[in-house]
Order: sequence, then structure tokens, then C-alpha cells
Amino acid sequence: MADGSGNMTAMDLYESLTSQGELVRTLKTEKAVKADIDAAVKLLLKLKADYKQVTGQDYKAGCPPLESTVLEDTGPAAAVDGEDMVDPWNVSTTSAKGVDYDKLIVRFGSSKVDQELVDRIERVSGKKPHRFLRRGIFFSHRDMHQVLDAYEKNKSFYLYTGRGPSSEAMHVGHLIPFIFTKWLQDTFDIPLVIQLTDDEKYLWKDLSLEDCHRYAVENAKDIIACGFDVNKTFIFSDLDYMGASPDFYRNVVKIQKHVTFNQVKGIFGFGDSDCIGKIAFPAIQAAPSFSNSFPQIFKGRKDIQCLIPCAIDQDPYFRMTRDVAPRIGYPKPALLHSTFFPALQGAQTKMSASDANSSIFLTDTPKQIKNKVNKHAFSGGKDTIEEHRKYGGNPDVDVSFMYLTFFLEDDEQLDKIRQDYASGALLTGELKKRLIDTLQPMITAHQERRKQVTEEMVLKFMTPRPLDFNF
Amino acid sequence: MADGSGNMTAMDLYESLTSQGELVRTLKTEKAVKADIDAAVKLLLKLKADYKQVTGQDYKAGCPPLESTVLEDTGPAAAVDGEDMVDPWNVSTTSAKGVDYDKLIVRFGSSKVDQELVDRIERVSGKKPHRFLRRGIFFSHRDMHQVLDAYEKNKSFYLYTGRGPSSEAMHVGHLIPFIFTKWLQDTFDIPLVIQLTDDEKYLWKDLSLEDCHRYAVENAKDIIACGFDVNKTFIFSDLDYMGASPDFYRNVVKIQKHVTFNQVKGIFGFGDSDCIGKIAFPAIQAAPSFSNSFPQIFKGRKDIQCLIPCAIDQDPYFRMTRDVAPRIGYPKPALLHSTFFPALQGAQTKMSASDANSSIFLTDTPKQIKNKVNKHAFSGGKDTIEEHRKYGGNPDVDVSFMYLTFFLEDDEQLDKIRQDYASGALLTGELKKRLIDTLQPMITAHQERRKQVTEEMVLKFMTPRPLDFNF
Repeated sequence: MADGSGNMTAMDLYESLTSQGELVRTLKTEKAVKADIDAAVKLLLKLKADYKQVTGQDYKAGCPPLESTVLEDTGPAAAVDGEDMVDPWNVSTTSAKGVDYDKLIVRFGSSKVDQELVDRIERVSGKKPHRFLRRGIFFSHRDMHQVLDAYEKNKSFYLYTGRGPSSEAMHVGHLIPFIFTKWLQDTFDIPLVIQLTDDEKYLWKDLSLEDCHRYAVENAKDIIACGFDVNKTFIFSDLDYMGASPDFYRNVVKIQKHVTFNQVKGIFGFGDSDCIGKIAFPAIQAAPSFSNSFPQIFKGRKDIQCLIPCAIDQDPYFRMTRDVAPRIGYPKPALLHSTFFPALQGAQTKMSASDANSSIFLTDTPKQIKNKVNKHAFSGGKDTIEEHRKYGGNPDVDVSFMYLTFFLEDDEQLDKIRQDYASGALLTGELKKRLIDTLQPMITAHQERRKQVTEEMVLKFMTPRPLDFNF
Repeated sequence: MADGSGNMTAMDLYESLTSQGELVRTLKTEKAVKADIDAAVKLLLKLKADYKQVTGQDYKAGCPPLESTVLEDTGPAAAVDGEDMVDPWNVSTTSAKGVDYDKLIVRFGSSKVDQELVDRIERVSGKKPHRFLRRGIFFSHRDMHQVLDAYEKNKSFYLYTGRGPSSEAMHVGHLIPFIFTKWLQDTFDIPLVIQLTDDEKYLWKDLSLEDCHRYAVENAKDIIACGFDVNKTFIFSDLDYMGASPDFYRNVVKIQKHVTFNQVKGIFGFGDSDCIGKIAFPAIQAAPSFSNSFPQIFKGRKDIQCLIPCAIDQDPYFRMTRDVAPRIGYPKPALLHSTFFPALQGAQTKMSASDANSSIFLTDTPKQIKNKVNKHAFSGGKDTIEEHRKYGGNPDVDVSFMYLTFFLEDDEQLDKIRQDYASGALLTGELKKRLIDTLQPMITAHQERRKQVTEEMVLKFMTPRPLDFNF
């Protein structure tokens, strides 16, 4: 690196810039010696200048230089603005409030879930919108109006969501898409397919196939415990279902024929040293978006509209899917995107299932919940009670308040908590207690329901079979 | 291109060189104006010089510049020597005698099937070696001695071969691996799996999935007509079997995790604009090399040695497979490689199933066979009978003689034909008649056997099931 970047290609520079950017971030996070940080930043700036000279463009993390064919309605996966970074494997921001979601909508080219859409969902469904809709947690969408247009004309649709089973342990954040998907299913009375990408976890992580598959089955139990109806829901592990459905594999191959390496490079940032399994995987996450991947449910029909509730970091997969769909004669899936669930330590990062203190796990005891919230939940309060009473706390960066936004059903109570915390009437300890009182019964009830989930039930949910719908 | 290559990266130069090389070949083949050829050659040489300057290495077709990790025992797929070019999709040479196979052995790093090995096969099996072995048609191998060592200690093995079903029509050349595989199976009494890569054909060709699958089933009928025993043979379409065997898919994913894009780029010459299906496909051709891909046959055992009889152009797939095998805990497959079956027009090219006049098809009538041989089979004879009687013909470039080498069982007769043709005692018309007399009953008998192949038989051959072996 020291001998300059004069002879480097655009790709070399891009890769150097990526690692240099990481180095700078690490040094800053670890509060390294100032001289070291300065030197690293200086090299970063030089590389950026060289990069601009060679490519004629500004460096953007996650967007390699080459002639990466940009897909029709596809922006880059990594939305970089200031320091926000969002793709299926990395989410980071320097703002304690979390990622700037309005900017993400613009950059990803999706649409905002505005009051008009929320009102329309209420009108069409005849149900009070879920708190995740009322509070902007599902904040972005693609083609929701089309789905509702069709639904009003008695054209049904189906739901598809999923999870990457990287460990046995799931935390409360992992429940967000499932809680919301269950509400959608109950509200619209439609089939649901849930993909467990155990093959993906095997390809990305240092895990055995057997472990990934076991995690898939364990995670299925937590998902079932959310209350899904076995007669309306099919849960599948990729490792099982790929080998059990020629129709699913046929769709995977169709998608794989219509996506180039250049495209996945542009969308996901894959490189030449990535294994061919990763490169091909996006087609496997795409395939459940098409109804004929499930002939047992949809009787071979390929025209049933799919709606995918998921966290916004999964959008790159479905931008790719939407680009491919018309070229292979299938409808584009619609999407509803959620914000990220913050780590206890703050909204700067997505949570990690491997760090026990970064969130509340579904296996935590009431005591663990209390300790974790009291000890680790980042507070927006002031340093002393006096100051807090005088100036008030900041609910926008307070993780306990954020968690209540996700889990406290009562809008008026939540609003009062916000006001009281901002005014200083509510102390941090009291706010934390509200969260503890909300989480403890919720997690205990989940654990009770999970205990009721038998191996036979899991087997039934995971067996390809017709559901209680006529297509 | 005209504005020079000053600012081009190594990869840009490589890609330009590849297309410029193709242009030069096309111009020469089409006998273009000399000035055009000269200009194209001049640019080619300039690009080669630039390439050497940028990379410090000589340009080699099929070997991209980047840090392409070279696999352990793997040479480049494309063996370029003079003008010989061999990979799974292209075989070409300028020599009328065909590809120089001795050089190919050196370049691919395989071993010659020498007299010692042929004698050993005879000793171990107690059977006269097949004419394909006696005549050097299966000319190269990997680890055959290991297979025989184990066999002598009562350790069994299994056979794996296959076909890419790109059309309904198969020609006599396509039978070579199946004729030989049947002999191996009869001789050693072992299980056989036959892969029909309909997914590959869909990915590479402008064909529908449905057509590729239909071709697979039609080709299976011709394969069955070779006389395979349904109790010892499993034939499968990838499109079917991938969706019918979780164990097969698990092996595919394992292989895909252990091969990078750089590797398949180096081995197969894939580029950034290739679809992700092609990039991932080599793992699907590799997976049948491992016995636990067929739990119904091998009771889940992963240690049964595999022997793959195939044409030498398929070796790149199995070099990759052999590199991956020990890293995922499986034995390396052994191989037996055949030469190419020449086109009627001469040994310079591999035959094409899409050119009806390039070979004898399994559907040809006796009259068509007679006409094709008389009209299209490239002759090594002299221009006039007088000259032929005086100087003799050249059997080494005569396609009728080459075909007899493949299909005439009697060694003495074949040798006499060679001598008589070389001396001038046998005229071209007489040589062609010998071939016609050999092919007509052979093809008629094949057609008779194919007529006996019912849909039920095809279904049975293609159903995953135990075979008559105890593992």
C-alpha cells in the first residue's frame, strides 16, 4: 500500500479503498492514537482521489467500479450516505437515531408507507392497522397499491418471508417480520410460505450443513410459536425443499439463467474470490417469490401475486427478483420493508445473534431480561436526576423507548411515555421498568407457546402439502 | 479498439485479445482479403505485447490474468498447443489426424493408458480388453491402478457417466462412452449412474426447460437401448433428481462452498457477463462423483470409489471435482478418458448434433447411412484410381477407417484393411463399403432395441431406487 497506487486498476483501488475505510472505522471505534487515525485517513483520501482519476467517478462503498450492468429498477445494495451502509450482510450508521430511512427510500427507489396507504389498508381490510404500520416500522413498500387494487377485485395473493438460521438462539428483533406477517395473514386470510435459508448460512458461515439444518428446525419452533395456522402456512428448509420439489429447482435454474455475475457483483458486492455457491444463492432466495415454486399449494399456477414482508436489508434480493420476473413470465413480488430492530447498545448497528448482550433473547428468563435492560439498554437520559428533571431525556436515541415502540400496543400510553420522558417527568429507571414489564410477560408467553410445539407439529408445518385455499 | 490499449487493465486486454483472436480465426477460415487479415493480426500482436507489459506474462487463451488461484492438480481447461483447443464446449485442431492426445496427457496431467494397464485390466477382470482399450480410444486415465488395487482386495466401485441432452437426435459418436461403460459394468459387475444434464443445456442453449427435459427422456431411450441392466443402472435428469434428493443437493452445496469464481474462471474460462447458473453448474456435474449423492443405492455410504468413463473434454469438471473431494472428506473419482469421435468431414472438429451431415445418426436409415458415408466421409485416398494403386491411401486421416477403428470388432480384419488401404490394394469406395456394411446392421439393431424401450422402462430406469448390490 505504501508504494502508492499509481499502477493500480480501478478494481484494485476499489478493494484497497474498502479495506482502508474499514481500517479507519476500526481505529476510530477503538479510539486509537490520533497520529495513526490521521495517517489512515490521509491514505484513504489519497486512494479516493486516485479512484476518481482512474474511474471518473466518486468511490461508493458496495459499488464496484467495473461495467456492472445496472438492473432496471435497481439501485446499489449499499446505500451510503454520510456513513449509513445497508446490505444483506452489513448495516451500519454513525447516528444514534439509526439509519436515515427516508434517504434509504430515495436511494433504493422504493415508496414510503404514507398515511394514505395505512388508511387504505384499514379501509380494505376493515381492521385497525398493526402498530408496526401505525408507527412507521414497516416504512417502505413496492407495489402495495397494486396488491390492494387486485385484492379489492377478489384477486388473492400470498405472503413470503424467511429467516437465515445462523444459530439456535433467536432474539426479539427476529420476531418483527413474523409478528407482522401473522397480522397480514390473519387480516387478509391468505397462504404463507416461510423460507429458512440453511444453505445460505452454510455458504456464508463456518458451520456444518448438519448444524445449519438443525438451526432451521429449531428456529421453525420459535416461528410456529408466533401462532401461525398450520393449515395456511408452509415452512421449509432450503436443504430439504430443494431436494423435494423439482418445480422449485426449475425456478431456481430459470432465475440463474437470467442473472449475470456482473449483476450480482453490482447488487451484492460479490468478488472473484467468493465461492460459486454464494454467487448462485440469490436465485434461491428469489424463487419463493413465484407461486409455481409451490405446486402443492397453488396447483401449478404461476400468476398468484406474492407479497414479501421483510427488513429493508433484504431488498437487494428482491430488486433482483423483480428485474428477472417479467423476463421469465412471472409477476413481480410486492414488498413491505421494516426498519432495523436496534441493538440494546444503540441504533448504530443491527443486532447480532452471536452477542448475548446485544438483545433480549427468546430464551431469556425474566431476571435476565431485567438485568439486560437495566445494564445494557442505551439511555437517552441525562447524567444526573437533577439534570434529567431539568432538561428531560431524548426518546429518539433511547433504546428502551425504541423497544416500547415495537412492543407496547397502546398508542396513548406510548405517547405519554414519550412526552414524560422528554419533559423529564419520567426517569430512565422508570422508562426501563416499563419496558421490562412489557417484555417479561411477552417472552414468558412465547416460551409457553414454544413448549407446546411438538416435533410432529414441526414436521407437519415443514411437509410440502396443500393448504386450506383453493387456487 | 482503434484508440489503442494504453489505459486498459489486464482483464480488459485479456478480453480484447480473446475476441481479436476469434476475429483472426474467422477471417482466416472465411478466406478474407489479405489486407484485412494482416490488419487484424497486427492488432492482435500489439495487444499481446501490451498484455505482456501489463501482466509480465504471455497471453494464453482460456487463462484470464487475475490472481486466479490455480487448483492443486489442475492445468488450464483449454490446452493450446499450436492450434489444439480442448474444453467442454470447444474442441478444435488444424491437424487432419485430430488432436494430439499425447500432448494433451502432458498438459492435463493425466496418465496414459499404456499396454501395462490394458494387460492388468485383462488380468484382473479375466476378460479380453474392449477394443476401445486395445486401440487407444480410451487413451488416458486418472487413478485406474488405485481402482484395480482396491478391486483386487474385494473393494467395489461404481461407474458414473453422462450426457448433455441438447437435442432429441443422438449420433454414433454419442454412444462411445455408453458402449464402453456397459462393457465395464458387465466386466466388473458394479452399479452405474448416468447423469443427463438438462439443466446445463437450458443454461447454455436457447432452449426451454421443457424441451431440455424432453430431450433428456428421449436420450435415455437411446442409452437404455445400449443394453443396460435396469437392476444395476440409475439414469437421472438433473431437473428431476435435484428436486427428488436432498442428499444430492447437499453435496452440490458442499462443492459450491469449496470452489471460487476465480477457480471456475481459470478452469472453464467463465467471464463476468456469464449467468450465475453457468458459474454454479460445475458443482452439479461434480456431485454424482460422490457415492452419498445416491443414498438409495449406497445406503448413505460416502466412501465408495467412483470411476468416470468420459470424453477428454469433460476432464476439467473432474479435475475440479478431484481438487474439492479431499477437502469435503470424499474419495477422488478415478477417470478413463476417450478421444473424440471424428465428424464425417474430418478429425479437425468434434461432431455437432445439430448438423445432420456431420455424422451418422441413430435414426438414419440404411440408405441414409450409405449416402452419408459415400458423400461426406473425408477420404485419405488419392485423386485417381491409378495414383491410389500406385501410392496408396492414408488411413490416418481417412474418416471411414477411423470409424471402423471404433466399430469393427475384429482386430485382424481392421489391420488388414489398414495395410491394404495404405498399399493401395483397397480403394476408397471399397473401404467405405466396409464401413457401410458395419454401420447398417449396427444402427438397425440399435433401432430395434430402442423400439422395445417402453415408457414404463424409462420410468423405472429413472426412478431413484435401490439397485441389486449390497453396500
